[in-house]
Parts: sequence; C-alpha cells; structure tokens
Amino acid sequence: MHVLIIGAAGMIGRKFLDRISAEPDVLGQEIDKLTLVDVVAPTAPPEFESITSSQAADLADAGVAARLIATRPDLIIHLAAVVSGEAEMDFEKGYRVNLEGTQALLEAIRLEGRNAPYKPRLVYASSIAVYGAPFAPTISDDFALYPLTSYGTQKAIGELLLADYSRKGFLEGIGIRLPTICIRPGKPNKAASGFFSNILREPLVGQEAVLPVDENVRHWFTSPRSAVGFFVHASTMDLGPVGPRINLSMPGLSATVGEEIEALRRVAGDDTVKLIRRVPDPAIQAIVAGWATNFEGRRARELGFTAETDFDDIIRAHIEDELEGRVGG
Amino acid sequence: MHVLIIGAAGMIGRKFLDRISAEPDVLGQEIDKLTLVDVVAPTAPPEFESITSSQAADLADAGVAARLIATRPDLIIHLAAVVSGEAEMDFEKGYRVNLEGTQALLEAIRLEGRNAPYKPRLVYASSIAVYGAPFAPTISDDFALYPLTSYGTQKAIGELLLADYSRKGFLEGIGIRLPTICIRPGKPNKAASGFFSNILREPLVGQEAVLPVDENVRHWFTSPRSAVGFFVHASTMDLGPVGPRINLSMPGLSATVGEEIEALRRVAGDDTVKLIRRVPDPAIQAIVAGWATNFEGRRARELGFTAETDFDDIIRAHIEDELEGRVGG
Repeated sequence: MHVLIIGAAGMIGRKFLDRISAEPDVLGQEIDKLTLVDVVAPTAPPEFESITSSQAADLADAGVAARLIATRPDLIIHLAAVVSGEAEMDFEKGYRVNLEGTQALLEAIRLEGRNAPYKPRLVYASSIAVYGAPFAPTISDDFALYPLTSYGTQKAIGELLLADYSRKGFLEGIGIRLPTICIRPGKPNKAASGFFSNILREPLVGQEAVLPVDENVRHWFTSPRSAVGFFVHASTMDLGPVGPRINLSMPGLSATVGEEIEALRRVAGDDTVKLIRRVPDPAIQAIVAGWATNFEGRRARELGFTAETDFDDIIRAHIEDELEGRVGG
Repeated sequence: MHVLIIGAAGMIGRKFLDRISAEPDVLGQEIDKLTLVDVVAPTAPPEFESITSSQAADLADAGVAARLIATRPDLIIHLAAVVSGEAEMDFEKGYRVNLEGTQALLEAIRLEGRNAPYKPRLVYASSIAVYGAPFAPTISDDFALYPLTSYGTQKAIGELLLADYSRKGFLEGIGIRLPTICIRPGKPNKAASGFFSNILREPLVGQEAVLPVDENVRHWFTSPRSAVGFFVHASTMDLGPVGPRINLSMPGLSATVGEEIEALRRVAGDDTVKLIRRVPDPAIQAIVAGWATNFEGRRARELGFTAETDFDDIIRAHIEDELEGRVGG
C-alpha cells in the first residue's frame, strides 16, 4: 500500500508516523511506499526510510496535487492547513491553503481517475471550528455548521466538497472533526487555546504555567494519542455503514478547567498543581466564551471511534507518550 | 441607487423586474442605474430602459466579475445558477458556474473595496437543496446542511462564503433559501419537481397534466410572488438583527399533492381537477421521496419574510399574476 501524508511535519502527522512505525501492520496492509509532504520536507521515520519520498511542497501551487496523485497513492491523509489564528489574520493565505489546496487535491484525484480507475481513501482533518455560537448545550450530529472564523468556513467547505466527491464515486472520503487536542506536546504557544494544555504540560515538568480564564470554563478535548487513533481507524474502517454523511464529530471529553486541575492533582499531586498561576486575561476569556463545550459524537462512537472518558487518562497518556512515564522537573 | 441583477433573464429575475417596474419605490431608494446580466442579454423593462445596461456574460469567465463590480453597484441580486439536474449531469459546469462564479463575484467585491471603501448589499439565491435526508420531521433553523446533490453542495458552499465575507466586513450578505416555487409559470418541463406546478397550471388553462406520484407526497412550497417578495425584503431590510447566521430558510407552505388538488377544486372546480391524469412514475417517486417536506422557517418569519399560508392563496396568486384573473381553456 502506498500512503501519502500531506502535512506530515505537523504534530498529528509526526505522531501518526510514530504509530505506524511502532505498529507496522496497524493499517491492515503492508506499507510499501510512503510519500510525506509539508511546507518543509518531513523527516522520514527510520523504519520506512528506504521506501519514503519526503517532499517540500504546497498543495495549492500549480501542478503539485496532480504530480502527487499521479503516483496513485492508495491512502491519503490530508492534514495540511493554515491554523485558525493565521487564517483569520491572513484572509488570502487561509483560503489559498485551506480551500484551494483541498480543491486541488480533490480535482487531481477526480482527473486521475479518468486515466484509469482510481478511488483512493482520503482521510480529511476537519475541526470543531466548523461550528459557531449560539450552540445547543450538547451539539448533536444533526446540528448546523455556522462557523464564525475563516478557518472554520474553509474546513466546512472542505467537508462539503469531500462529501460530494465521495458521493459521485471519485474517492472514498471520510472527514474527522477533531476536538481541541490536549495535552498538546511541545512549547507553550500563543494560540488562544494554548492554556488548556500549558496548565498541565508545564507543571508536569516542574515549570510554572499561566491560567488566563476561570476554572468553570468548559471545553471539548481529546489526547494526541486518541487523535492518531481516529486517523488510523478512518484509514482502515469499512465505509459502508457510514452512509452519505461522511464528516463525523469525533468522540471527546467535555471538561472544565477546574476538572483538568483536579485530574492533575490526582495524577501528579498538590505541588504540581501549585505551579499554575492565575493571571486573568479578558481578551482570552472573550475568545474562549465563543467556543463549543460539549458534543454528542454518537455516530462516530457507533462507527468505532474511541477516546478517553476522563481527564486522568488524558494526563496519563501524556506522561507515557511524552515523559517516559516520569513526572517532575 | 445602482442595482445589479445577475441571472436577470430567469423566472425570478424577470418577476423581480416586473415588481420594481410596477412599484418603482419598492426598494426604498430611487433606482438611477440598472445592470442586467445573464448568459443571454436580458430584456430591459420599458420603465428603466434609459438607465439599463443589459449584458450577456458568464460570471465565471476571467475578468467578468471585476468588470461588473468596477461600476460599484449598491445592491447586487445574485440569481445566476446552473439548476439541480444539469449540475448533477455536468459536474464541471455545475462547479464552474455555481461555485467559481460565486467565488469570483465575492472576490471582485473584496478587491474593489481595496481601491476605495465599498460594501454593497448582496442578496444570494440559495435553495432547500442544501439539506439532505435523513431529515427531521420539521427542519429547524439549527438543522445541519448535508446536501445530497452537487447543486445543493455548491449552494451550501456559496452560503458559507457569503457568511464569511460578510463577517469580515467586505459586503452585506444575505442568503435566501428558496422553497420549491409553485406555481412555476411557463411550459411543463422535465425537472423531477415539475409536476407540483404542472398539475395546477395546465388544468387552469384547460389542458391535461400528468401526476406521477401518490397524493400523500408532501413538499415545501412558495409562490413566485412570495419569492420576489423575499428578494425585495432582503434588499431593503436592516441586517443588524440578522446576526452572523445570514442564510435563512424562507417561510413556505408544507402541503401534500392531495392538498394541492383539493385547493384547485375549491378555486377552479371539479372539471378543472378532472384534467389531472394519474400516471405513476417510480423514478420520479424515488427522487421525490428524498426531498424535505417541512421547515420551521422561524428566524425568517421573525425577520419579516412572509409567504402564503394556504394553497388556495398560491393558486389565486397565479390566476391574478399569470392569467389576468381568468380560469379555463
């Protein structure tokens, strides 16, 4: 099987590669070719080095999608995106990368299928940013997509195109609406959502972290480990039972900041929790107030997608996957 | 005020022109320039002939949108579309006209605004085809858009783009999700939905009409008169109370074929009803079974959009507007 990963240098791309390196049969078929694409050439995993083509390329550039698809990958994981904040700041770049890049990929697949039958599996990374306030208390699978950011708009359009190209038989699409990933590994960043991870990740290594909102703020989470699991399952599952609504809100965990902190206390103790400094930031509070807090995710669970059901497990996954099982500075 | 109507030669475009000809102050401001565009040059209404520019043009052709927008129309009514059946048959044409044409218009407006402040009102014709089965018994304003046709997909994407361009302040957008128009004037056509109009329009002029489905088939209707009213209201209303969800399911009338026929009997008598011939067509029955039957349309009604509340009124509107008040062959 030839696997193409677009956006392979990002966090989920790298963790997906770690997973298939650790479990080479996890996709159900032997991988005999791996193409990795990102704006910088991704690092090939040692286990797949001899069969990997690593490329720096932009999907929205003329000819790039057609060139990648001419190699007829069997499975395409499309993770490439300009993130929410950047798409909001740079309107043209967001539409170019997030919309035109996705359109170019879909069109390249459709046109390749004219040369000889071709119908790859395409797993598309979407986001809960496709939803906008006002929300229902729990967002059902039937709830309307009215995004309030350009990023969410672009992801919602990508979902619609993926569904139509799938319905017409040009490809086997499935869209994965990701919850906020927590605990996001790496350094603290300035994303408005960063604190949800920072207040756990930094104290777990003995560092202070800033909490800019009240403890009663509620949001919707999944771990990096579960997120990779979503992409593995989407790559291998039977799509027959999915029907025409191929874009799915993934299962996740609805939790308040206070619940995050109590889970941290249970897993890592009072001294770790003391490293959280409360520095209220009205700007971040206002942004976060517009975010969804809870999803039903019923269809995705029925279709076999799974995620953590308490925050202790999310923290333990981070300790196992990122800290080699150790807590403390 | 300069008014630009794109798709002005279609049924709604012509009836909108009839309306502003009959009531020149209906848009609240004097019209001092009228630009009419369609794939064939639309006919200028006599009342506006001296101030009308009538053009044959395709919005998706390079430079067309920019050229039209360089004249800085204050109000733009965007009706141009390849219809459902054609968009399903010709995938590339549907995406070119319905998606790229709309994108070109939005981008032309955004870029024109860089030269000097410019923020026109843009009224966009959408459709209940943005919804796909399985439906709720009554489709609320929060119900998700999962179209099952390329036309519905293109209209749903147009809605998302319109909302994002409006949110960013590039234009004042409002999207009008039209019910099925009934009684559609003109000749019977081969659209799967044609019979809903045919079984009323043809008998009203003493002609036979074919009914291919059962009398218990239910659908969602509005008259051409109400549809024009939606566009007039959308052109003139205060958009402040609309908020960010600018695409609205219009009010309409949920009725069965049997209820259509009983209304015809009340308005035009038994002999007229006898001109309906029952010729069951399983292909049409299957298509129609996938269509929405009832909408809440609560937000649109609260925002001042109005439509008929019984089928007798829909038939009477047709007799007044199309038949000069007379029934019979």
